Amino acid sequence: MAPLADLYHLTMAYGQWRAGRHRSPASAELFFRRGPFRGTFALGAGLAEGLRGLRAFRFSAADIAYLRSVLPSTTEDAFFDYLATLDASEVTVSAVPEGSVVFAGVPFLQVKGPLLVVQLLETMLLCLVNYASLVATNASRFRLLAGPDVKLMEIGLRRAQGPDGALSASRYSYIGGFDCTSNILAGKLYGIPVRGTIAHSFIMSFTSLEEVQPRELPPLAGGEPVDFPALAQSWLPRVCELLQTPPEKTNRGELAAFVSYAITFPHDFQGLLDTYCVRRSGLPNFCAVALALHQLSYRAVGVRLDSGDLAQQSKEIRQALRACGAHFQVPWFETIPIAVSNDISEQSLEQFSQEGNEIDMIGVGTHLVTCPLQPSLGCVYKLVEVNGSPCLKLTQDEEKMTIPGTKTIYRLYDAAGHPFMDLMALEEEPSPSVGQELAIRVLGRLGETSKVVPTTVECLHRTYFRDGQVCEPLPSLLEVRNHAQASLSLLSPAHRRLHDPQPYPVAMTEKLYHLLIELREARQ
Amino acid sequence: MAPLADLYHLTMAYGQWRAGRHRSPASAELFFRRGPFRGTFALGAGLAEGLRGLRAFRFSAADIAYLRSVLPSTTEDAFFDYLATLDASEVTVSAVPEGSVVFAGVPFLQVKGPLLVVQLLETMLLCLVNYASLVATNASRFRLLAGPDVKLMEIGLRRAQGPDGALSASRYSYIGGFDCTSNILAGKLYGIPVRGTIAHSFIMSFTSLEEVQPRELPPLAGGEPVDFPALAQSWLPRVCELLQTPPEKTNRGELAAFVSYAITFPHDFQGLLDTYCVRRSGLPNFCAVALALHQLSYRAVGVRLDSGDLAQQSKEIRQALRACGAHFQVPWFETIPIAVSNDISEQSLEQFSQEGNEIDMIGVGTHLVTCPLQPSLGCVYKLVEVNGSPCLKLTQDEEKMTIPGTKTIYRLYDAAGHPFMDLMALEEEPSPSVGQELAIRVLGRLGETSKVVPTTVECLHRTYFRDGQVCEPLPSLLEVRNHAQASLSLLSPAHRRLHDPQPYPVAMTEKLYHLLIELREARQ
Repeated sequence: MAPLADLYHLTMAYGQWRAGRHRSPASAELFFRRGPFRGTFALGAGLAEGLRGLRAFRFSAADIAYLRSVLPSTTEDAFFDYLATLDASEVTVSAVPEGSVVFAGVPFLQVKGPLLVVQLLETMLLCLVNYASLVATNASRFRLLAGPDVKLMEIGLRRAQGPDGALSASRYSYIGGFDCTSNILAGKLYGIPVRGTIAHSFIMSFTSLEEVQPRELPPLAGGEPVDFPALAQSWLPRVCELLQTPPEKTNRGELAAFVSYAITFPHDFQGLLDTYCVRRSGLPNFCAVALALHQLSYRAVGVRLDSGDLAQQSKEIRQALRACGAHFQVPWFETIPIAVSNDISEQSLEQFSQEGNEIDMIGVGTHLVTCPLQPSLGCVYKLVEVNGSPCLKLTQDEEKMTIPGTKTIYRLYDAAGHPFMDLMALEEEPSPSVGQELAIRVLGRLGETSKVVPTTVECLHRTYFRDGQVCEPLPSLLEVRNHAQASLSLLSPAHRRLHDPQPYPVAMTEKLYHLLIELREARQ
Repeated sequence: MAPLADLYHLTMAYGQWRAGRHRSPASAELFFRRGPFRGTFALGAGLAEGLRGLRAFRFSAADIAYLRSVLPSTTEDAFFDYLATLDASEVTVSAVPEGSVVFAGVPFLQVKGPLLVVQLLETMLLCLVNYASLVATNASRFRLLAGPDVKLMEIGLRRAQGPDGALSASRYSYIGGFDCTSNILAGKLYGIPVRGTIAHSFIMSFTSLEEVQPRELPPLAGGEPVDFPALAQSWLPRVCELLQTPPEKTNRGELAAFVSYAITFPHDFQGLLDTYCVRRSGLPNFCAVALALHQLSYRAVGVRLDSGDLAQQSKEIRQALRACGAHFQVPWFETIPIAVSNDISEQSLEQFSQEGNEIDMIGVGTHLVTCPLQPSLGCVYKLVEVNGSPCLKLTQDEEKMTIPGTKTIYRLYDAAGHPFMDLMALEEEPSPSVGQELAIRVLGRLGETSKVVPTTVECLHRTYFRDGQVCEPLPSLLEVRNHAQASLSLLSPAHRRLHDPQPYPVAMTEKLYHLLIELREARQ
């Protein structure tokens, strides 16, 4: 595959090459300008894939042939010969560990190397980091809203931007705190736990109990197999009587589907309740089958709802399960997990909390993978230094201004162990000292000096790529997931909250500030 | 790659297989429930990729090994042996031609085949059709807003859901009416025209004219090369005087970047004007370099803006270009194309129209590829018939109800040549006759019979896949693009308009309606 790049990178590359500036040492930074979803924080993700992209960065003969066909015919042959020799072996990349909490305006990936290559890497790195960080952050918000105990399942394969987007969604939702995915390929490739039982189509494909084949199920402890459809059917009137619903309103195809599924997976029977009517059909059919299973010493593993008022229904279902459990003396019945899906958003989770609910597991698809609250993180990749000279972009939009110079990034912690500020310093400056007062300038009010005294100082970046190789061991996906949760848990509640969070201050040293002012004056 | 599927498809497949129902003949339909972006129409896209997926549909030994590890340990070996034999050779797929206008509730892809395979194809087809249709539709809306003459360029590679999402965005934006993309790989793979010149980073990498190498440029007609930096510099005071801006406020690095780029691409010089100040630096520097090029008989190809009030600036720039053209007697100067980018949305295009503008080309990234107005089309794939029996899903949500039976889809046209209704009929019904009154039921008011008289009747679907092979020639991407524009142009303005369009009626035959009512009564 050709390097991921926009055409202007190649035309610029030719310009740099022709001017003999292609090997000038350069630094670039990757960051986003505003916290996503109106929160303060994001999770920085996509690093491992970015590093894989760096290792593979190379133009094939076919790529070069294609570029010849699209660049102006005056482009010199020697330039294409040069492109064919390029790789990322002279590039150094430092970054925050994947899954770390990151803030607007603070570079979380830095690239140093020959100008031409540093520029050519822009789109690839943005493409691999932008969505990864966005969806990991989105997932972490669902996790914060759901609390630690509810299981969260990613079910977005059919709603993502194609197969690859869906795989990214599965991978980075897991990092952000989801427990499992429905996507088999994500399970196979990344080892993410996969889950899934039945869909409406399975239930709709049955019309009567006569269709159930095979019909026998042996008790768990062994012994004579029993006619399971008959057993389930014998429970139905008793359940209907208890739940006060007419047996003739239960759908026979649905019962057949449940029975068939239970015979097939007696240890893993989950009932999807809403193909017809939950209260009058799905629920009594489920209870009848689950009680029949119980008679053979199996336990049903759950129910699922995919439409209607999920919180309200979950309470009604819990009540019915409790009633069955008590009446038929099946204690585990009342704890049968209730799973829900159906266009679940952050708002849905807030409503569930407000209404009260009995939900144990939530499947999130569209609102997780497409991030409708903000479908792009808007990361940018900016040159900050070329040939030892810091670069500055001054535009009409103040927000689009860049901060010049190659930097070291520190995170400052307070006595309670919460990070309270990220600080950008020039690379040559000494590290801030613990317990010592520090004069800094906070972004958004650069005109005044502020003083802070950090209890702990963390140097945020590590060098991950050097001499064409990944030079720092990369954690497993599960380790990244754990790191993300740990990183989030350090945040103070005021910074972590999803609505109207307290802004997280980002600052620069006095020295960096003076460089900025000096350059700004020189350029205006 | 393993087939794209959610785990529940496999557990259901096992259920069907164990029940001996896996080979029951089944039909499924793919459709969306609501018109995207509050419009009436969508463009149906993703068919060619879906067909490719069908041809490749197969479980590898590694896939089977993985499935063994995630399905319950009680799953029989013979089932995995069966999975290993599966392919799509018994599946028949019919669909609307790719790029056709399609409406909510009307199936635009139909799958027939053995139940197990038909169910297993659900997620793959949805994954390949959903985003494709969404982004093609989104692109078509930008095209309708921009009008036929403005060039539209897709620049979303860095904002998509990874490399594959970006490729889909390029491909389907082109189908929807975009002219070109910045994405080199999309150009290479799909033959879409690629475009691109320079970015801010190129400009920021220069600080003075001394850095420009090489410095000489021969006139177009041949002859002695001239010192081009000196020539451009000689024009600068003259331009500044005309534009009434102080020469000392022009940025020297920017001038150097323009000069360097012009020497490199004298036939393709485009100035990116907003790295520093458009009016006081970008514009005079551009004019000086473009006039110097003109002196050597080359023509600059354009300017680009990436920040600020784009419509307003485009007018100011056009005025300045006109003034330069008149003053220096360079007639082509006033028609230099003005390109803009910077978070362009539908709303931006509406504002451009309202304010008036001089924009010739628009680059759209985030708002094109992430579709923030509605980031998912929400296509669904529903079983409508198994073993010759029509299926019905009756849920709490009326909207989630399905319409049973295998259908033929007709589009009815009025005397003006506009489609006025899509009509679903049972497969066995005869085609509606031209010029004859037809009794139908319109979705949303099924209680009453309506009468229509079509001037033309089109059978919408063609059979594209049969016996494991694509059985209808697939058009080129350009042909699909042309078909999409033709299909859109047939729509009446009331149905095509983007805001508050007239709802497009979707209907069913009396016979289909009676089947629906009959099944609904039987199931309730």
